[in-house]
Amino acid sequence: MAHVVGIDLGGSSIKAVCVSAQGGLLAEANVPFVDRDREWAHKIRTIAADFAAAHGAPDAIGLSAPGLASRDARSISFMPGRLIGLEGLDWTAWLGSPRPVPVLNDAHAALLGEVWKGAARGATSAILLTLGTGVGGAAMVDGRLLRGHLGRAGHLGHVTVDFEGALDSVNTPGSVEGEIGNKNIAERSGGRFRTTLELVDAHLAGDADATRLWLRSTKALAAAIASLVNVLDPEVVIVGGGIARAGDALFGPVRTGLDRFEWRPGGAKVRVVPASLGDLAGAYGAAWNALGQGTSV
Amino acid sequence: MAHVVGIDLGGSSIKAVCVSAQGGLLAEANVPFVDRDREWAHKIRTIAADFAAAHGAPDAIGLSAPGLASRDARSISFMPGRLIGLEGLDWTAWLGSPRPVPVLNDAHAALLGEVWKGAARGATSAILLTLGTGVGGAAMVDGRLLRGHLGRAGHLGHVTVDFEGALDSVNTPGSVEGEIGNKNIAERSGGRFRTTLELVDAHLAGDADATRLWLRSTKALAAAIASLVNVLDPEVVIVGGGIARAGDALFGPVRTGLDRFEWRPGGAKVRVVPASLGDLAGAYGAAWNALGQGTSV
Repeated sequence: MAHVVGIDLGGSSIKAVCVSAQGGLLAEANVPFVDRDREWAHKIRTIAADFAAAHGAPDAIGLSAPGLASRDARSISFMPGRLIGLEGLDWTAWLGSPRPVPVLNDAHAALLGEVWKGAARGATSAILLTLGTGVGGAAMVDGRLLRGHLGRAGHLGHVTVDFEGALDSVNTPGSVEGEIGNKNIAERSGGRFRTTLELVDAHLAGDADATRLWLRSTKALAAAIASLVNVLDPEVVIVGGGIARAGDALFGPVRTGLDRFEWRPGGAKVRVVPASLGDLAGAYGAAWNALGQGTSV
Repeated sequence: MAHVVGIDLGGSSIKAVCVSAQGGLLAEANVPFVDRDREWAHKIRTIAADFAAAHGAPDAIGLSAPGLASRDARSISFMPGRLIGLEGLDWTAWLGSPRPVPVLNDAHAALLGEVWKGAARGATSAILLTLGTGVGGAAMVDGRLLRGHLGRAGHLGHVTVDFEGALDSVNTPGSVEGEIGNKNIAERSGGRFRTTLELVDAHLAGDADATRLWLRSTKALAAAIASLVNVLDPEVVIVGGGIARAGDALFGPVRTGLDRFEWRPGGAKVRVVPASLGDLAGAYGAAWNALGQGTSV
């Protein structure tokens, strides 16, 4: 039976799926690792071998990982500071695959997964924002994932919402990541909260300061989404990541913000939906990419 | 000899080119019109007939115009308030063309023109910002013009740089258009200037208030460009429109801003260049589009 394998290398674990070409799940794996001595690379080789032993040689393997994918899609070309050994590793060679193993940025893969089997099924123009430690993202426009000149396209967290604000990790002034990510919640809250979800809990418990802060964050996010809608014109905006677990406390004010900020030509309105594949989105997307779907490579 | 015609409908004049498939200019036209009784539509028909009389029937005709192009690219589907009669007009029928006449948004066409024959020749990922009354734009990523779900992609002037700011014409809060476009220069300058170029002149003459205002505008623009680089990952950013005539007074501070704000993975740096085709960019782009280039339709 024809099947493909998608493998998603995260910061501390590897998620993998073995799926039929129609997307039926044959097997999955979730393997933690410690980031030293390329343990992750060896474990990925083992996962691929285990899948092959159980289901036969796959028709294709796709991989996703943090960092920028190279233009030829054989490796990650830029991922400084962690996962040492990832930059330049040729996954086709490493996995001994008879067919090229296409490599994708992890957020790019998560969006492809959501378009294939998740919250944006069937969409041709869609964007994903993942709200966590930082704010990640990806964009598909007119049926194709945006990669860009350096593979950097879709870094949607690094857009300015306050150009007089502090520079973020990639020097973007007053970015939406800085307004809602967990990374600087301590600064934003004068040391009161350790995560954005703690802030949301205090807001829901009726804490007026927390409410003020949270409504500022969601207003900034709504402004960023309205801006991205003008730039990328998606039919659906997917919001994922740990902070999306806030549910209505997040989606309510964001939708209210969009009622004010979104350009709606002829009344057309973008859908804003939660991600639905959880931490398997990247693995599914890597598999779909290996099928040659959703992408221009 | 094989040739194509590109026609660009502006706000008060029609620009048109008749070009060989290699882009050699055979003829051009610049015809003013008054926006009543679809005068522009009749004049476009005359231009096409004149070109055909002089050079023979073209292999293809392309058209660009303000507003959002329909998904089937046969018309402009959304252009409220002016050019009455443009919405829904089928240009293939109107021009009696044996081949479909593809219709593009005017900024989309200008970018295609600059990529074909202008400032971004040969680029596969490029963005255009036009600084004038408003701020317009367009984006090409991975060799394809972005259109999006409603044909709205690339409205780069309507991105937030100050989410607590006033809403612009499409409800974007604190947009870059609001910080640098001519439209609200009177508000920004307390009534002192009628155009942004007047502000630049005062800045160059040593007026400290003008300098402060202008450096605020260019900082906002640099933040917006840095953000768009993270979203669209172009190799080149083209800046056109009347305000680009400020030359170094514009490009200097924008490049200085990007030295602070641009994410440069591995040292890679985006090129920022002035548009080079002037008001023929849209006509060239419409012609290139009729050749089936630069686009996914």
